[in-house]
Amino acid sequence: MSQREKIYLFDTTLRDGQQTPGIDFGVEDKIAIAKLLDEFGVDYVEGGYPGANPTDTAFFEKNRMKSASFVAFGMTKRAGVSASNDPGVSALLQSRSDAVCFVAKSWDYHVDVALGITNEENLEGITASVEATVAAGKEAMVDCEHFFDGYKANADYALACARAAYDAGARWVVLCDTNGGTQPAEVAKIVSAVIAAGIPGDHLGIHAHNDTGQAVANSLAAVDAGVRQVQGTLNGIGERCGNANLVTLIPTLVLKPLWNSRFMTEIDADKLKQLTRISHAFDELLNRSPEPQSPYVGASSFATKAGIHASALLKDPRTYEHVEPDAVGNQRKVMVSDQGGKSNFINELNRRGIEVSKDNPRLDRLISIVKEHEAAGYAYEGADASFELLARRTLGRVPEFFKVDSFRVMVERRFDANGNLKTISEAIVKVEIDGETKMSVSEGHGPVNALDIALRKDLGKYQAEIEDLELTDYKVRILNGGTEAITRVLIESRDQSGERWWTVGVSHNIIDASFQALMDSVTYKLLKMRKDG
Amino acid sequence: MSQREKIYLFDTTLRDGQQTPGIDFGVEDKIAIAKLLDEFGVDYVEGGYPGANPTDTAFFEKNRMKSASFVAFGMTKRAGVSASNDPGVSALLQSRSDAVCFVAKSWDYHVDVALGITNEENLEGITASVEATVAAGKEAMVDCEHFFDGYKANADYALACARAAYDAGARWVVLCDTNGGTQPAEVAKIVSAVIAAGIPGDHLGIHAHNDTGQAVANSLAAVDAGVRQVQGTLNGIGERCGNANLVTLIPTLVLKPLWNSRFMTEIDADKLKQLTRISHAFDELLNRSPEPQSPYVGASSFATKAGIHASALLKDPRTYEHVEPDAVGNQRKVMVSDQGGKSNFINELNRRGIEVSKDNPRLDRLISIVKEHEAAGYAYEGADASFELLARRTLGRVPEFFKVDSFRVMVERRFDANGNLKTISEAIVKVEIDGETKMSVSEGHGPVNALDIALRKDLGKYQAEIEDLELTDYKVRILNGGTEAITRVLIESRDQSGERWWTVGVSHNIIDASFQALMDSVTYKLLKMRKDG
Repeated sequence: MSQREKIYLFDTTLRDGQQTPGIDFGVEDKIAIAKLLDEFGVDYVEGGYPGANPTDTAFFEKNRMKSASFVAFGMTKRAGVSASNDPGVSALLQSRSDAVCFVAKSWDYHVDVALGITNEENLEGITASVEATVAAGKEAMVDCEHFFDGYKANADYALACARAAYDAGARWVVLCDTNGGTQPAEVAKIVSAVIAAGIPGDHLGIHAHNDTGQAVANSLAAVDAGVRQVQGTLNGIGERCGNANLVTLIPTLVLKPLWNSRFMTEIDADKLKQLTRISHAFDELLNRSPEPQSPYVGASSFATKAGIHASALLKDPRTYEHVEPDAVGNQRKVMVSDQGGKSNFINELNRRGIEVSKDNPRLDRLISIVKEHEAAGYAYEGADASFELLARRTLGRVPEFFKVDSFRVMVERRFDANGNLKTISEAIVKVEIDGETKMSVSEGHGPVNALDIALRKDLGKYQAEIEDLELTDYKVRILNGGTEAITRVLIESRDQSGERWWTVGVSHNIIDASFQALMDSVTYKLLKMRKDG
Repeated sequence: MSQREKIYLFDTTLRDGQQTPGIDFGVEDKIAIAKLLDEFGVDYVEGGYPGANPTDTAFFEKNRMKSASFVAFGMTKRAGVSASNDPGVSALLQSRSDAVCFVAKSWDYHVDVALGITNEENLEGITASVEATVAAGKEAMVDCEHFFDGYKANADYALACARAAYDAGARWVVLCDTNGGTQPAEVAKIVSAVIAAGIPGDHLGIHAHNDTGQAVANSLAAVDAGVRQVQGTLNGIGERCGNANLVTLIPTLVLKPLWNSRFMTEIDADKLKQLTRISHAFDELLNRSPEPQSPYVGASSFATKAGIHASALLKDPRTYEHVEPDAVGNQRKVMVSDQGGKSNFINELNRRGIEVSKDNPRLDRLISIVKEHEAAGYAYEGADASFELLARRTLGRVPEFFKVDSFRVMVERRFDANGNLKTISEAIVKVEIDGETKMSVSEGHGPVNALDIALRKDLGKYQAEIEDLELTDYKVRILNGGTEAITRVLIESRDQSGERWWTVGVSHNIIDASFQALMDSVTYKLLKMRKDG
C-alpha cells in the first residue's frame, strides 16, 4: 500500500445544521454537540456566526475544542469599508475561534442580484477578508457559495473567486453545491477543472447538499477528483434536504477498500466503534427517534427478515453484510441469541463496575429483561442510571430505601375570582420508610413538577442525602400514534459532585412514566452515596 | 438534441420493499399500491412471490395492471428436477403475471455455501427457468444476486451467469448490489465490463441498496455506463437501509439536463406533478409521517429559514432552488420564524388563502404577536394550523364555536384490592355552547388522553362535524431545565379528507400546553368544515 493521503473532516452541524427547519440550538446544546464531535475526532467544528446572534456570540466566548479546530463562520467584508472597519469581520476575528470560514459568492448572477455589488468588489472582499484573518493569526477558509452552478454559468468568474481566496492565503477553498442539484459526474468534472486551473486539491474542500439524494456520492466524487476536505453534518441535518451525512461518509471512507487504500482520516477503527452511539446521542439531543434505515447506524441496518438471507447469514455473516456491524458500534439483528451479544453485554456491565461471570444464570435473566423492556419502549442507551439499577437489582441486591404506597396528582384550570384563567397542579405522595408512613403534598408548575417536589419533600432519614439532588433535564418522547400513545420519559439529574445521570420510565401514562424515572433518580442517588462513602 | 433512449422503471416496493423491518402488506394494501404505481407510469410492478405465501398467491390471481407489466418473482428451478417439475417455477408460470423475474446466484461462493450445488447446476437452473418462461409466453428476467461482489470474487463466473440468462432469452439481466456496499465508480466499471463481454446495455438492469447512502448514485452511475432498466421502491423502503428510492431517482432523470438530454422515461412532466402526492399517499398507507427532508417531496425540501437566503429567494426563486417545487407537486416554504421579514410573512399568509395588504396595521400586530409567541417557545413553523388560526383571529374573525369554562384532570396511583398497582386518569371538562353548559367526564390512558376524550365527548351541535377528527401524533419538547421547565406540545390531527394539520401549545404545565393544542385542533377542524363547505 502506498502512502495514504489525509482527508480532513469538517463538521458544520452547529452552523449549516442549524438551518434545518425545526432545529434551534441553545448554547448548552452547542457545547454538548461540540464535545461529541471533538471527542469523536473530526478535524474542524464550525460553531456558528459570532456577532450575529447572542447564542453564537456566547458560544464563541471560549474555545470549546480540545483537539479539533474551532471555526467561526461569517460573511466576507462588505464593499466600501476596509476589513478592519467591518463589524462582522471584526466579530469573527475577535472570537475565540482557531479558524474563520468566510462565505463568498462565486456565481456572478448572485453577486449582482443578491449583493448588488460589482464582480471586482466581491473579489476584493474575499482577498481582504482572508488577508485580515491570516494577519490575525487564524486559519482562513472560504466557502464558495453556488460554486458549481456559478461555474456552469461563468467558469472564469467562479475560478477567479476560488483563486482570490487561495492567493490571499486561504488554507481551504471550499466548493459548495449550495442548491444541492449538481450530479456526481458534474462535481468530478468541475473539481478536476479547478485543480487544472492551478488550485491544488489539498487546498480544496467539498460542501454538498442532499437535494437529489446524492450528497454523500457528490462528496466522494469530489474526493476522487482531488479535494481533501469534506464538509457535512451529524445525521445529515441541514437546510432543505440536509447536508452530506458525515455518519454515512466517515465509515465509507474508513471501511471501504476503494477509499481506505488511498486515504486516511483521524477516525481510526476504535473511534469508529463510537459511531452508532454518537448518531443516537445526537438524535436524543434533538429529541427525535433515530431513523431505523440510516446507513451503518440504523436499528435496521444489519437486520434481516428474509428467511433465506437469515439462514445464509448464520452460516457466514459476510454473505449478506457489506461490513461488520461491530465496526461501527452497531449490532446484527437475527432471531437468534448470539455469543457476540452476550459479551457486549458483559462489557457494558464491566464499564459500570459490575463484575459478572458468563455462566451466571442471572445474566441470562438480565439480558431477557432488558430485551423485553426495550421492546416495550425503554431506551437504556440513553439512561445509564436506570440500566445500572436494573442490572444491580437483577444480579444482586439494591436496598429498598423507601416505598411509595400511592400518589395522586390533580390539575385544575378555572377562572379565579377576578375572572382570570388559572391552572393549579397539586400532588400528594404517601411514602413508607422503615414501617413509618409519611404523606406529603405540594403544588408545582405542572403535574410532574408537583409530583417531584412532593416525592422529595420528606424522605425521613434519607432527606439530608438528597438535598443536593437536582433535576436538570426532562425529555418526553411519544413512541407511537396520538394522545393514547406510549410515552417515554428521560430525566437527567445531578448533584454537588457534578455527576450527571439519566433515568427512564415508560408507560401509556406520562405521569406514571415520569414517576418511574423520578424514583430511579432518587434511588440511584441514595445508592451512589453508599458507593462513594 | 439527438434521439433520447428510454430508461425502463421497475418498481419492487411490493417485493423487496416488503423486506423492510416493520412493513407487511396485505392483499388490499398491495392492490392499492399497485394502482398508485400503475397510474403513475412505471414500466414494471413486481408484486411478490406467488406460490410462496397466501397473500401473494391471492394477489396474483388477477392481473392488477392497466399499463405496467405485472411481474412475479421467485427462485430459478432447483437442481435435479426439470423446470416443469419444479413447483416453485410452475406457480410463477401459472400466475397472472406478464413477466417473471428469477433470482439467481451469481457469486460462486454463494452457489456453494448457500445453495450447496455446483456452479454448472446453477447455470443450468438459470437457462432452464428462463427458457420455460419464454415458452410459456411470458417475458423473462433474471436478478443476478450479489453480482458486484461476485464479479470482484470471480468475474468469469458472474459473467457466465449473466450470459446464461441473456442467451436463454431473458429480456433483462439485472445486476444486483445485494449487500449494498458497492461504490458508484465500481458499479460503473463493472457494468462497462459486462457490456464489453457482450451483453448489451439495453438488456441490463440495476438493483441497488442504500447501505452506504448511495443507492440513487449507484443506479445513475449504472445508467451512465449503459444499463437501461432501473429498479427501486417508493420512498426507498426495503431490506436493511432500503432500496434505491424511485421518488428521488425519477425527478432527477426527468428534470436534470445531464440525464434528460440523453434519456426519457414514461413519466412526463404532468405525471411528475403527482410525485409528492404519491409519496405522501404511500406513507399514509404505511401509517407513518412523511420524512420532511426527503429529496423533492419533503415538507422541508423547498423550505428556507435563513434570512439572507429568504430575501434572495423572494427576488428570484432560482437563486436557492435547484428545481421548481411545482414540477414535483411540492411547494416553496419560507419559514415563519423570527428570521423572516414582512414580505415572507405576507407570502405565507397568501399561501393559506389569507389576503392582507402591506399597510394593514393588524399585520404589524400579527407579526409582533408571532415574534412574542416564538420567543416564549411556540414553534409555528411546525404548527401550520395554529399559525393560521392566530392569523385569522388577529386579522379578521374566527367564531368562538365553544368556550371551555374549566377542566380538572386527576391521576391517581395506588394498590388495588388485589395488591396490584393501578393508575387511573380522569378528566372533567365544562364547556359552554350557545349559552348552554355541558359537563363531560372521561377516563383515559393518561391525563392528556382523558382530557382529549372528555373535550371531544359532547360539543353539542358541532359533535357530528368532529366525528372524523383523529389525533395521529403527539410530540412533547421540554424547552429548558428540569421538571419545572417550559413544555411545548405539538399535535398532529387528520380527518377523512386525508388532510393533516399541526397545532401547538406552550406552558409551564404540560396539561395546559396539551389543552391549548387540542383546542386549536378542534377549532381548526370546525373552521375547515366551513371553508370546505
